[in-house]
Amino acid sequence: MHDELITALRGGLPEGAVLTDPDVMAAYSHDMASFSEAGAPAAVVLATCREDVQHVMRVATALKVPVVPQGARTGLSGGANASENCIVLSLVKMDRILEIDPVDRIAVVEPGVINAVLSRAVAEHGLAYPPDPSSWEQCTIGGNIGTGAGGLCCVKYGVTAEYVLGLEVVLADGRLLSTGRRTAKGVAGYDLTRLFVGSEGTLGVVVKAVLALKPAPAPQLAMVAEFPSAAAAGDAVCAIMESGHVPSLLELMDGTTIRAVNAMAKMGLPETTEAMLLAAFDTADPAADLAAVGALCTAAGATDVVPAEDAAESELLLQARRLSLTALETLTSATMIDDVCVPRGKLGEMLDGVAKIADRFDLTIGVCAHAGDGNTHPVVCFDAHDPDESRRARESFDEIMALGLALGGTITGEHGVGLLKKDWLARELGPTGVELQRGVKAVFDPLGLLNPGKLF
Amino acid sequence: MHDELITALRGGLPEGAVLTDPDVMAAYSHDMASFSEAGAPAAVVLATCREDVQHVMRVATALKVPVVPQGARTGLSGGANASENCIVLSLVKMDRILEIDPVDRIAVVEPGVINAVLSRAVAEHGLAYPPDPSSWEQCTIGGNIGTGAGGLCCVKYGVTAEYVLGLEVVLADGRLLSTGRRTAKGVAGYDLTRLFVGSEGTLGVVVKAVLALKPAPAPQLAMVAEFPSAAAAGDAVCAIMESGHVPSLLELMDGTTIRAVNAMAKMGLPETTEAMLLAAFDTADPAADLAAVGALCTAAGATDVVPAEDAAESELLLQARRLSLTALETLTSATMIDDVCVPRGKLGEMLDGVAKIADRFDLTIGVCAHAGDGNTHPVVCFDAHDPDESRRARESFDEIMALGLALGGTITGEHGVGLLKKDWLARELGPTGVELQRGVKAVFDPLGLLNPGKLF
Ligand SMILES: Cc1cc2nc3c(=O)[nH]c(=O)nc-3n(C[C@H](O)[C@H](O)[C@H](O)COP(=O)(O)OP(=O)(O)OC[C@H]3O[C@@H](n4cnc5c(N)ncnc54)[C@H](O)[C@@H]3O)c2cc1C
Ligand SMILES: Cc1cc2nc3c(=O)[nH]c(=O)nc-3n(C[C@H](O)[C@H](O)[C@H](O)COP(=O)(O)OP(=O)(O)OC[C@H]3O[C@@H](n4cnc5c(N)ncnc54)[C@H](O)[C@@H]3O)c2cc1C
Repeated sequence: MHDELITALRGGLPEGAVLTDPDVMAAYSHDMASFSEAGAPAAVVLATCREDVQHVMRVATALKVPVVPQGARTGLSGGANASENCIVLSLVKMDRILEIDPVDRIAVVEPGVINAVLSRAVAEHGLAYPPDPSSWEQCTIGGNIGTGAGGLCCVKYGVTAEYVLGLEVVLADGRLLSTGRRTAKGVAGYDLTRLFVGSEGTLGVVVKAVLALKPAPAPQLAMVAEFPSAAAAGDAVCAIMESGHVPSLLELMDGTTIRAVNAMAKMGLPETTEAMLLAAFDTADPAADLAAVGALCTAAGATDVVPAEDAAESELLLQARRLSLTALETLTSATMIDDVCVPRGKLGEMLDGVAKIADRFDLTIGVCAHAGDGNTHPVVCFDAHDPDESRRARESFDEIMALGLALGGTITGEHGVGLLKKDWLARELGPTGVELQRGVKAVFDPLGLLNPGKLF
Repeated sequence: MHDELITALRGGLPEGAVLTDPDVMAAYSHDMASFSEAGAPAAVVLATCREDVQHVMRVATALKVPVVPQGARTGLSGGANASENCIVLSLVKMDRILEIDPVDRIAVVEPGVINAVLSRAVAEHGLAYPPDPSSWEQCTIGGNIGTGAGGLCCVKYGVTAEYVLGLEVVLADGRLLSTGRRTAKGVAGYDLTRLFVGSEGTLGVVVKAVLALKPAPAPQLAMVAEFPSAAAAGDAVCAIMESGHVPSLLELMDGTTIRAVNAMAKMGLPETTEAMLLAAFDTADPAADLAAVGALCTAAGATDVVPAEDAAESELLLQARRLSLTALETLTSATMIDDVCVPRGKLGEMLDGVAKIADRFDLTIGVCAHAGDGNTHPVVCFDAHDPDESRRARESFDEIMALGLALGGTITGEHGVGLLKKDWLARELGPTGVELQRGVKAVFDPLGLLNPGKLF
């Protein structure tokens, strides 16, 4: 069976596209959610074109072998993890930018294009591709579409779903499907394009995407505000949004996160503060907007408000925020990263609740957050070699999701469900929701070959 | 059968909710696409709450009677038209705004809320609900969700799909489904919310919606530019978008449309021009932006460029544009309104092509367009009592869609497929696309009771 599979794969693929070395395959077997289980793949395929992908799916269908589509494996929920004896189908070599059109404000790309590479390419045309996950120098557009990625500027510019106009997708049986459009608008039939965004490789393999671009915004100017408590920072966020401000960035780092970033990168952030808000504007008069927002922070209890000198210093502050998850991961041998998004009016309650959970389970849980969107990342730090601590970690991770749901939020704002949260998806969706989602899955993938075991 | 149906409906609905008078029912039997066929309903139900809707769907499922969900019937593709012996399920009485939350920037509404009523209500909180179809004083949020409505400000602020965060939907069998969220972000499972947007009442009945709001923009300042040809106006649109401008409005009216609006409403628009562009900005310095855009128009061949004096005069110009479809409809006994959206780089070719089609078929075809989005509305004017002219009208209507597809566009930018374009949907989607769309339909509505005969 294994030999038959490898022979069939090699029969229609270029030399070197099929990897079977166990050590090499091990590297492709999991994403960055270190805690999630991963099986040993039967083969790893590095596709170079749509036809390669179609061949893989035809072989997989014929032999009933599961396929795990994969980008850069920066995912944080195990969504790209191999299942036992699967084909890992990596799209990273399909990395051509096919078209950038400044009149139509679109880019047409292959799925393996790295987010930051696209950003730089469109910048040369005076354009921007807004969704900017902190992993942007590694993660791929295909992975961003798979997870429905967010990022730092989403509070003003929205998430990946808002920027995907059309797709080419290879279906489970190898057929090619075109969805959507390259026009600014279009409502012909059901919105299958949006159905693929966030579907975590379970409905089809994206081989081409038409993405909407925006004119490049003015350079943003940032500001830092220090707070005596995370909840006070949450109050400031509410006041800022209620007053009608439109920041291009509104991020939070708690004390644990700040100290971790300082320790890793000598950033010189204020160590004694309990929570730091980072706000930025790319408006016509960012200094005026920052002054207004600074006053709201002070009113909410900020002990210090420091505007950046210029765009360069602002960029440094962003860098600090982008390092947060990586820095928190260095604190212990393992972490589990939550991604609960709550209505922003509940942000303070959410942050307080996480602190109580950390106390109760006697664990370090650092929090960074896309605060303007109510999207928190409580990072549960634990020693994976200590069974009791590992159990407490998993329990606290789950309690954080329960708290998020109780506050009217969702278990995942941007990282996806993958393996890590699949027990929780049913709680959020309810039985009717799950039944319909399974029905949709069966329409696209009747044999259940695409990324089985993920989502539900 | 008919008596059984009426008795069963009345059994679970408030007094007066079920209408059976033939004349009254005739009024509920069609939308504004006068050319599309409509059957005679068996009953019209005016639902007042979710439970009413659930009762109707349970009865419909038990007796296998088709149901046509309906808003204000301003649709332009026959999507809300009755089919023979169906239940028309009108949502117009479910018109409560349940919540407006300025911190979370959301509104929670019932489906029968009128678009402009919501706009005015959120304006009192300093907020805006951007999607603004020209029919906004009549059309409902449920209908906007059903069609995926656009409007005038969409060139800057996007369409209905961008603003629907979560839904409550009554399914074909009467069960209630909650989709999505009230948070700013969320990727838990497939995006069923977006699947409902634009589904034209074929997947479920929307009974509640969580909508995203934006801070109210500054009042916009508008400008008019006159062109010797529609194609020259198209060139100006390309130049404006390529230069990175972000107008809050960029609309086109051709000579026929201008004269029709003048005739109807004495607007005093320039009658001798072949095409007029209307641009507006709600930026920090709209006058400067208008000056730059005016220069681009002149370079593209504009014979005259006239900025509005103030916000009030700007609003008058918008009014003129909003009247376009209605005014064109007064020219002849019947019209068919196309809704082709092309990549905006192809706008000039599209407009030229429509003029040639009008010549060839010897018909008046007035064009207004959401030009910044490439979304054209060629309005085919004809005498419905003249069989030959009616045939030519239908043929030219179809040729316009063929041209749109040939230019890489879509048959419908915002009005939907309904009955009027259903033969064309398959051409746009292709066999694989249609097969999957039918599969999705069957998951939600296995008996095919919801708005049968629409879309495909
Ligand atoms: C330091 C760090 C910071 C991060 N910051 C953010 C952040 O700010 N915001 C955010 O949203 N995420 C963030 N992430 C998470 C991660 O980067 C994103 O989820 C990203 O979208 C994953 O992209 P990838 O190319 O690595 O995809 P992978 O991890 O390889 O795959 C992700 C999912 O997409 C599917 N997939 C991949 N390619 C395709 C394809 N072509 N067709 C179909 N399915 C496909 C996979 O099956 C999998 O389910 C961060 C991660 C790290 C490590
Ligand atoms: C003068 C004029 C100008 C217009 N300008 C524009 C414009 O600029 N942009 C634009 O996009 N459209 C425009 N339209 C078209 C029309 O107004 C829109 O399509 C609008 O969204 C229809 O809303 P409605 O309440 O009238 O819905 P209806 O016409 O009653 O129904 C529309 C569709 O939605 C479905 N539906 C309605 N309510 C529900 C519900 N609760 N649950 C599920 N399905 C439902 C129906 O079955 C139907 O398929 C215009 C129309 C006119 C007459």
